Amino acid sequence: MQTQSESMANNTAKSGDLKKIFAPYRDDLKHYEQHFSEVMRSDIKLVDQVAKYIVKHKGKQFRPLLLMVSARAISEPTAATYTTAAVVELLHTATLVHDDVLDNSELRRGFKTIHKIWKNKIAILMGDYLLAKSLIAATETGSLRIMNTIATVAKRLIQGEIFEIQKTRNLDLNEKDYFRLIGDKTASLISACCELGALTVNATEAQCQAMKDFGENLGLAFQIKDDLLDYESSSGILGKPALADVQDKKVTLPLLYAFASADEKERKQISSMIKKGASKKDTHYILDFVKSQEGIEKARAKAYEIKDKAIESISILPESEARTSLENLAEFVLNRTK
Amino acid sequence: MQTQSESMANNTAKSGDLKKIFAPYRDDLKHYEQHFSEVMRSDIKLVDQVAKYIVKHKGKQFRPLLLMVSARAISEPTAATYTTAAVVELLHTATLVHDDVLDNSELRRGFKTIHKIWKNKIAILMGDYLLAKSLIAATETGSLRIMNTIATVAKRLIQGEIFEIQKTRNLDLNEKDYFRLIGDKTASLISACCELGALTVNATEAQCQAMKDFGENLGLAFQIKDDLLDYESSSGILGKPALADVQDKKVTLPLLYAFASADEKERKQISSMIKKGASKKDTHYILDFVKSQEGIEKARAKAYEIKDKAIESISILPESEARTSLENLAEFVLNRTK
Repeated sequence: MQTQSESMANNTAKSGDLKKIFAPYRDDLKHYEQHFSEVMRSDIKLVDQVAKYIVKHKGKQFRPLLLMVSARAISEPTAATYTTAAVVELLHTATLVHDDVLDNSELRRGFKTIHKIWKNKIAILMGDYLLAKSLIAATETGSLRIMNTIATVAKRLIQGEIFEIQKTRNLDLNEKDYFRLIGDKTASLISACCELGALTVNATEAQCQAMKDFGENLGLAFQIKDDLLDYESSSGILGKPALADVQDKKVTLPLLYAFASADEKERKQISSMIKKGASKKDTHYILDFVKSQEGIEKARAKAYEIKDKAIESISILPESEARTSLENLAEFVLNRTK
Repeated sequence: MQTQSESMANNTAKSGDLKKIFAPYRDDLKHYEQHFSEVMRSDIKLVDQVAKYIVKHKGKQFRPLLLMVSARAISEPTAATYTTAAVVELLHTATLVHDDVLDNSELRRGFKTIHKIWKNKIAILMGDYLLAKSLIAATETGSLRIMNTIATVAKRLIQGEIFEIQKTRNLDLNEKDYFRLIGDKTASLISACCELGALTVNATEAQCQAMKDFGENLGLAFQIKDDLLDYESSSGILGKPALADVQDKKVTLPLLYAFASADEKERKQISSMIKKGASKKDTHYILDFVKSQEGIEKARAKAYEIKDKAIESISILPESEARTSLENLAEFVLNRTK
């Protein structure tokens, strides 16, 4: 957890980098955004109202951009590329609308969440609606493989969330579970974006597989870094130990690696701290424990290893501006400080 | 609204009739149920647990049965018939799980609802999961048309619910809105079952259209009857005027038809009664008003007209046991007393 000013400064730096990486694809973004707005239109007033609010307060469009750059790393985008970019954003938005209900979040991107304005009923139904819309848009491509990829990634996203609740309730996550969890919750959609980009430009099977592998590893590296930030920012100059994840009873890779080299007694002691809800003193203790066992370094090394694998997998593609953008993206994902 | 003993007696009569209609398809049902249980399996413990609970407390399987009978009205069912029967039940179940959250219902088919046992988070996620599963199962058929039909019906079901909330909030429903609402909320899935049944046995385009029309009209007749029951049962021997729909601020066909032949002043008076929440005295008054304007008879006549249209549309199919079952089903839908 960071102080607000820290977080804002980092945010600027971060979106600056991302903006730079995605700058050459401004026209693609425009093209896609027009399509997305059209897809979101509805003749049912209430649906249209909520949809317009979502379009107005949209995010960085990371997923559609990733999809379009992935397509460009192979060939010129097609109509299906833009359609599919809208499909992944619809799916992503559906999950965010429901997530905000599940977590009872007040704000999303600095604006009131759907359920805070229109109540839970409408938010749940709008999430369902966006999920269905995403799949209808996917059928427009006329490709069963694209449809199946989208439906499967929707399933992975959702089962990832359920798996996380199950594991958080029981606090019995191991390394294998952790990778399955972040694979389903985060890497699945990132991987699908890359694979779908390739599929929409008639890539070869080897190219599709390369893009899929790149995306899966990019997503894993991204999530490990996210989990690392919880430990890294807690040890910063201004930072007080926060370990928000630990306080949410979430066990992530730095702690898992620390557990692996600790003795049974220590593991049990820390597990019970987390189970009963860690106090401020406990979180200090846990952070020191993770550091002493080199959990942060080990998790960081793993993230770099996975990032290298991501970059390696797209080395079979011809050199291009888009391939370089993907490589820069992989580096950015680990270098970010927020 | 009916007394409990009335309702139970009717229920026995009703399910007796439905059971009789569907009796010849017991083997199809078995075949489908086995497939459905397999589809519901998950290697994530919590998902599997909830899924098993759903399978254990399943309903009458009206939709999969309708789909299988529709297929048989044209030809022998195929593997795709059973797969698609599971697809529609998955979709239907997804909407029920979310509906129970939206309405905060305690019981479904006499058993505790998912969100009462596992809390809202899991219920919302399980609904999402079943929706995604439904679409993955649809891709198994390898038919883009089946996929698109399912995704579109999912959208219609959901937008129907949002439209209902919008119209209930504003209380400005007209006859056209009413038919759109019940078309989306009820007829869409019934129609899809009939059309999908035909699609899975390689029916001709004319046969698919006939089945689709049959289903749409069957669904409309079903819902009008449902709305009629609210008025019919309120005037029964034991019944006190209840008009549960009016109390929920829902305007249905009998009232709309009564409005159409009443003068402006009377319409406004009744609208304001409903808006502010009808008292017991108000519901008496509204029931008398609907009766005096022949709203119940007119809605009943409309339901019969639609039912006749349903039966007419499948007259192009060759005579068969299955076609007769569909005809009996259409009659049953209007003759039921609950």
